[in-house]
Amino acid sequence: MKLFTTAGIFSKQEGETLEPTLQVLYDFLVTQGLDVLLSSPAAQILKQTATPDEELVTQIDVAIVVGGDGTLLTAGRLLSRYKVPIVGVNLGRVGFLVDVLPANMQEQLGAILNGHYIEDERCLLKAYAWRGEEKLGENIALNDVVLHARNEVRMIEFTTYIDGFFVNTQRADGLVISTPTGSTAYSLSSGGPILHTSLDATVLVPISPHTLTSRPIVIPNQSSIEIELGSDRPVDSLLSFDGHHDIPLMSGDRIKIKASPEKMRLLHPLHYDYYHILRSKLHWGTQL
Amino acid sequence: MKLFTTAGIFSKQEGETLEPTLQVLYDFLVTQGLDVLLSSPAAQILKQTATPDEELVTQIDVAIVVGGDGTLLTAGRLLSRYKVPIVGVNLGRVGFLVDVLPANMQEQLGAILNGHYIEDERCLLKAYAWRGEEKLGENIALNDVVLHARNEVRMIEFTTYIDGFFVNTQRADGLVISTPTGSTAYSLSSGGPILHTSLDATVLVPISPHTLTSRPIVIPNQSSIEIELGSDRPVDSLLSFDGHHDIPLMSGDRIKIKASPEKMRLLHPLHYDYYHILRSKLHWGTQL
Amino acid sequence: MKLFTTAGIFSKQEGETLEPTLQVLYDFLVTQGLDVLLSSPAAQILKQTATPDEELVTQIDVAIVVGGDGTLLTAGRLLSRYKVPIVGVNLGRVGFLVDVLPANMQEQLGAILNGHYIEDERCLLKAYAWRGEEKLGENIALNDVVLHARNEVRMIEFTTYIDGFFVNTQRADGLVISTPTGSTAYSLSSGGPILHTSLDATVLVPISPHTLTSRPIVIPNQSSIEIELGSDRPVDSLLSFDGHHDIPLMSGDRIKIKASPEKMRLLHPLHYDYYHILRSKLHWGTQL
Amino acid sequence: MKLFTTAGIFSKQEGETLEPTLQVLYDFLVTQGLDVLLSSPAAQILKQTATPDEELVTQIDVAIVVGGDGTLLTAGRLLSRYKVPIVGVNLGRVGFLVDVLPANMQEQLGAILNGHYIEDERCLLKAYAWRGEEKLGENIALNDVVLHARNEVRMIEFTTYIDGFFVNTQRADGLVISTPTGSTAYSLSSGGPILHTSLDATVLVPISPHTLTSRPIVIPNQSSIEIELGSDRPVDSLLSFDGHHDIPLMSGDRIKIKASPEKMRLLHPLHYDYYHILRSKLHWGTQL
Repeated sequence: MKLFTTAGIFSKQEGETLEPTLQVLYDFLVTQGLDVLLSSPAAQILKQTATPDEELVTQIDVAIVVGGDGTLLTAGRLLSRYKVPIVGVNLGRVGFLVDVLPANMQEQLGAILNGHYIEDERCLLKAYAWRGEEKLGENIALNDVVLHARNEVRMIEFTTYIDGFFVNTQRADGLVISTPTGSTAYSLSSGGPILHTSLDATVLVPISPHTLTSRPIVIPNQSSIEIELGSDRPVDSLLSFDGHHDIPLMSGDRIKIKASPEKMRLLHPLHYDYYHILRSKLHWGTQL
Repeated sequence: MKLFTTAGIFSKQEGETLEPTLQVLYDFLVTQGLDVLLSSPAAQILKQTATPDEELVTQIDVAIVVGGDGTLLTAGRLLSRYKVPIVGVNLGRVGFLVDVLPANMQEQLGAILNGHYIEDERCLLKAYAWRGEEKLGENIALNDVVLHARNEVRMIEFTTYIDGFFVNTQRADGLVISTPTGSTAYSLSSGGPILHTSLDATVLVPISPHTLTSRPIVIPNQSSIEIELGSDRPVDSLLSFDGHHDIPLMSGDRIKIKASPEKMRLLHPLHYDYYHILRSKLHWGTQL
Repeated sequence: MKLFTTAGIFSKQEGETLEPTLQVLYDFLVTQGLDVLLSSPAAQILKQTATPDEELVTQIDVAIVVGGDGTLLTAGRLLSRYKVPIVGVNLGRVGFLVDVLPANMQEQLGAILNGHYIEDERCLLKAYAWRGEEKLGENIALNDVVLHARNEVRMIEFTTYIDGFFVNTQRADGLVISTPTGSTAYSLSSGGPILHTSLDATVLVPISPHTLTSRPIVIPNQSSIEIELGSDRPVDSLLSFDGHHDIPLMSGDRIKIKASPEKMRLLHPLHYDYYHILRSKLHWGTQL
Repeated sequence: MKLFTTAGIFSKQEGETLEPTLQVLYDFLVTQGLDVLLSSPAAQILKQTATPDEELVTQIDVAIVVGGDGTLLTAGRLLSRYKVPIVGVNLGRVGFLVDVLPANMQEQLGAILNGHYIEDERCLLKAYAWRGEEKLGENIALNDVVLHARNEVRMIEFTTYIDGFFVNTQRADGLVISTPTGSTAYSLSSGGPILHTSLDATVLVPISPHTLTSRPIVIPNQSSIEIELGSDRPVDSLLSFDGHHDIPLMSGDRIKIKASPEKMRLLHPLHYDYYHILRSKLHWGTQL
């Protein structure tokens, strides 16, 4: 009995160099007896018919994403609510999320399709923005929800509440609210800790805070976060999700953020080693 | 029906100023119909008979600790394995753990003894040290297990493994392995994040690391940590538990650390507000 | 013989609460036998005739600035090239630069005008931006020259050269190039050190750097800095001076920054205590 | 006319691998017509007669140091008061201070001896410790003077004065007072900035400070620093110089630190590139 019957291929937008890898992948999946559907960018590169995303997500039971971590984040945001597991194939350089190398693709994918994989569930954040009673927008993020001043040389002022408790009011360039997956991205650049990806936790990291006592805080995923933009300093700001999909905000607007009950399902080859990836990406071994 | 029948009073060692508070506490507990036992320092101050700790812990079903956070940590390490809940009475200045003020003691304790409390379970770490096959010692910590060079002007070199995976080898003054409770103590001074006390997580924070890429990492409490002292730089070091109970170590020694299955049970008054305590202790509100 | 013959009064733009202080100041200076000229905002508040800035700067031999640090920075940028000494009067809350309190204004100003002052020279930075052969703009800064991504959720890439030597290429939200005066402002929020204001030095502080090995670097004021915006990541950015006067930049643009030979001359009351101001602004004394 | 007539060779203590390099160096200096004197470790390795250090320093007009940065620091502390210029030969791996590679030694040393060098003067710190009227000791440091708790798990409390002004009282594991040369050593590990080695400045960096508002501060070398060990927390501490020569301290002891009027004179090959060394040692280029 086969574990998977219909695979969807997702890929980066532009990239002629992708074509050979995608073709090999496509042929391999077909020879494995799978039905193969293509998302739009992959179909374009392979000069085949695309299946619209909204159809694709309901028909596939495994997704193969070819590209970098950003490509996988995009597919992940789409697929997480359908619980479709995802395998990430990189383009020659291991990412935090895309860990199958093209050179080993057939061997590693073959093993994964036969059930030899490590499943890795990743938290998502869901955020809403309100102006008074009007909902301005909502979205999900696999890495981070970032509140940032729109005018880059002025701080914003905001008040944070967790589970209804007042936490603090701070002035800063912004605030990163990050999942464990995102803790090695913008959160880390802003001074946040690394969160192991199996933690059900969220970290809040202020960006260039005006207050010297500011520190990152890690909270459990049961908690709900509410942020209110101060009205004393009427500075425009933006709420972004994984660095995209901005919602423009102004003084007095409110944001609610909570871990999503859905998770992204990543399938890794059996030799998956989180700390190895951390080392190779963060250069931990490097001595002065 | 009474929730609690036998209370134990724990207190700081020295402190004549404690006497009036302890006497009021003792009398109050007696009038509440409780049997009251005294640990040695409290008995000495009250000029009464002490019950030896090993007896005390098996006979009481609630502990009242009078002192600072350090006093409560000491009582907590003793009581956690017996699942005795603890109420902390401070001496005029709220601590992270001791949150009943002497001025409100009778009212707040009365409410707690009648079941009006918030229960707050705190993680503990358990660590062992080995030299070859010889076990050098073991202990538990409510705040942190700290590995530190003994000679203060030389770095130590150590290798960390988590769940059997090699993490990294680093040179530093030491490493703080901290519970959420300890995340506002030495871990914070060394650059660690704040962990909400309800998280089942541990943070590893290098102290003055030689490697510029070092960052704190937060891992789930299911994980086990193993540290091996490097043999290239034969520098003596110490393993300490909540700042006490040192185990002297040398090159080649190994340490195993894991969250304890036992937890410390803290009882707070109903108005307990974790973020309020954070603000008042860390001066979060303070603007430049 | 009088040390000063013509005083100029500078003030914040808006602020009706300023009127009494400005009136007292004006009258006091007149009774001291000084000719008094008013810059536009001060004249408007006092309902008198303003002297245009370009005339004012050549006619006064002392400037009194009433407002916050920002007001003094604006006056300082204007006056530094004319070597006019500046006295800063705050509005009730001591700033880093404005240290005469309104309550003590007459006494302290009287002493200063009679030669009882501490003179404090502050470094300025001068920066130019080029696109190929075209000069895009130039300006001076008393606090900092800041390069920052214009689109707040994308990093910029830039290469830094000092005295013609390649320093590094980094990805970050931006870079703060700060004087000692600015070292307690945005530079500090971004992780920079405090530079004593008497240092002839400049500090370069990356903002949320992607590279974990990034650290602030302090260089002598004889050095010249050149920054080239990378062309791989075509992200728009801005160059700002003391948080104002932005020059929009794009990939390939170049910036040259050097300490200005001119300095701002601040006059302080004799009891001036730099560390006292640091403590009161940065809350250094505050213990956990 | 020769620039140098008598050379002294200094080397690491142990190291049989040094012998060939030292022999080549010795022979080369002799063929260049120089009188060559040997410090004790070098003489031992070459099986020749040593000149006692106190004689050596007065007779040589150039010193060649073979080893790592630590070896050069030791020679530098000895030679700085005699203004003898120093050339550093590393053992295959460039250091911050030892930049002549053995492979290029003859060529590069030949050029330097003929006047083709870059002279680089490095600041030293001089510190004294007092207990009441009793002087406990004094020494000089090329990297740093470090005050550190002796018992590694207890903070010390100390008060800092600069130029007679009270700066702050802090609790910390210790304090690094570092020269620009030392700013890439322990100071950097403790969170300090990099100071360009041509700066006449000193940086004070607290080690694991208890106070969240603590930040490194850079002061000019004209300033004098005084530190007083608090008497509230009677914790033993040590004052060390470049990681050696400890002076044991206790509560109430006072330390005075000031930049030394003497400087260490380093001679570099003409291609000396400070930023190249920073990059290769700190891995600045490394991207996530």
